[in-house]
Amino acid sequence: MTQLKTRFTETFGIEHPIVQGGMQWVGRAPLVAAVANAGALGMLTALTQPTPEELTKEIARTRELTDKPFGVNLTILPAITPPPYAEYRQAIIEAGIKIVETAGSNPKEHLEDFQPHGIKVIHKATSVRHAVKAEQLGVDAVSVDGFECAGHPGEDDVPNLVLLPAAADQLTIPMIASGGIGDARGLVAALALGADAVNMGSRFLATVESPIHDNVKQQIVQNTERDTELMFRPLRNTARVASNAVSREVVEILNKGGEFKDVQSLVAGSRGREVYEQGDPERGVWSVGLVQGIINDVPTCHELVERMVAEADELIRGRLTGLLGQGAAV
Amino acid sequence: MTQLKTRFTETFGIEHPIVQGGMQWVGRAPLVAAVANAGALGMLTALTQPTPEELTKEIARTRELTDKPFGVNLTILPAITPPPYAEYRQAIIEAGIKIVETAGSNPKEHLEDFQPHGIKVIHKATSVRHAVKAEQLGVDAVSVDGFECAGHPGEDDVPNLVLLPAAADQLTIPMIASGGIGDARGLVAALALGADAVNMGSRFLATVESPIHDNVKQQIVQNTERDTELMFRPLRNTARVASNAVSREVVEILNKGGEFKDVQSLVAGSRGREVYEQGDPERGVWSVGLVQGIINDVPTCHELVERMVAEADELIRGRLTGLLGQGAAV
Repeated sequence: MTQLKTRFTETFGIEHPIVQGGMQWVGRAPLVAAVANAGALGMLTALTQPTPEELTKEIARTRELTDKPFGVNLTILPAITPPPYAEYRQAIIEAGIKIVETAGSNPKEHLEDFQPHGIKVIHKATSVRHAVKAEQLGVDAVSVDGFECAGHPGEDDVPNLVLLPAAADQLTIPMIASGGIGDARGLVAALALGADAVNMGSRFLATVESPIHDNVKQQIVQNTERDTELMFRPLRNTARVASNAVSREVVEILNKGGEFKDVQSLVAGSRGREVYEQGDPERGVWSVGLVQGIINDVPTCHELVERMVAEADELIRGRLTGLLGQGAAV
Repeated sequence: MTQLKTRFTETFGIEHPIVQGGMQWVGRAPLVAAVANAGALGMLTALTQPTPEELTKEIARTRELTDKPFGVNLTILPAITPPPYAEYRQAIIEAGIKIVETAGSNPKEHLEDFQPHGIKVIHKATSVRHAVKAEQLGVDAVSVDGFECAGHPGEDDVPNLVLLPAAADQLTIPMIASGGIGDARGLVAALALGADAVNMGSRFLATVESPIHDNVKQQIVQNTERDTELMFRPLRNTARVASNAVSREVVEILNKGGEFKDVQSLVAGSRGREVYEQGDPERGVWSVGLVQGIINDVPTCHELVERMVAEADELIRGRLTGLLGQGAAV
């Protein structure tokens, strides 16, 4: 079978250089196990579980479905009443998880907890300076999130075609390209730009095993690359979400000088969760990346990963090598 | 010598799949001839010349410096008193130019003039729908301009990592990737994403033969990918320019509800021209793309093109092929 061996696959012991992005409400046992069984790196999202105890149970449920390694994403978000992060960390450590993805703020306190237990940490960063900072703090890899990505792309608006090589020029640890990647073309482009793996959220959101209503998967297939909104921009906490009546209303209110409290009921997490569970893509705000424009089907995770790796092989050995003249390599 | 043969090099009879982007005030004989002599496609900008007669002379000057083919860019911009476009077209035709790049509006009237004279037309488009429309009108290639690009990226804000494969899925004619590309990594990424060549503006702006003051070239080398502004966004005529006191003031005035007349003196073309000629990068508004973040030197055009093609060969035969397992290709 086709294989792509990179510093990512070597460092993390994962067969293919493909990571399933941590997605709130979506990173649950069925999807994560399916990704792991396909030879990629699945990620449970810790905060999808209401308590650390429930996370412990979700890890156990995932293990019933796969013998392969998988990771847990722990995202630290600004909150008036923050979740008990230390207890979630303890649950991850005690469950014997060996790969954690951190996001949302400085990973220092996580590292001090995780690394003594042999846990490898991938930190998400939306800029070169944050990626470099994470490397200095000692993370094992950075996941560089371009402007294309769903969720929080930061405020710099630098897409991966520039952000990845700019980051590669300053990093020595493995780099994962996140945002805008949905097929073998994006995978090979990311590898050419200096990445060692790709992280995909939206692409795994529209798979058979993704635990969301099929209507939402079909909406992703129908949407084009023009069908997202950058929400919360005036608050400097930009989030890329699917364009619908709700997200457009939020953008309009904030552009007119509204404050967060004016849109709070529109963006409540419970409404996004209802979209995923009940299948009305117009009902609330839900995250999706620009890559939805090139998502045209709902494959199984196994089909998706196998296809990407096989087509990447063909793209490198076929198309790209075929463009070269017959002379010797430089 | 290393060569990359693509549908672009075959269709246009150019040695390398690299195009020098049309740049106002910059696309003059010395740069265009140097690009042509390096085996890439140079582009004079028609409207840099004050009259069609001066364009005729600039074409002749370029021919004194190179025997290789080169093109002319003709950009149609909204204007109260438009330049005499038909006369510029006539000058291009009579000079025997065989490649024209059109930009800024529907290429239909250009095509009707140019194609009967055996002139191949490349049309610039910032969206899939405009690229498809141009193909339907009969252009010979489209140059797809992503969100990364200098000048006018359009209002959709779709970067090339998504825009190129989305366009490739709907086009049959050769596609040139424009925006965000400055080295072999971007070239190979663009080829992987479905492009047949790359268009580079900012990268050629910072070359030895580029007819601008060295201070501006050094400013591009110093700037990072965060040092651009999206100007005119509230007017829905967005332009990506270097971030400086002038462009930031324009953004601020327009964000506060100002109109074009309130910034007109700040953005006058003569001020951008003065920056290029007199070498004070703070004096006026000048265009540059996000790719400046990975521009670290001022090579000759020959050095730049040779290096890109050689490194692309090495990237494909070395790094990418090396990642593949030893099994047979699929």
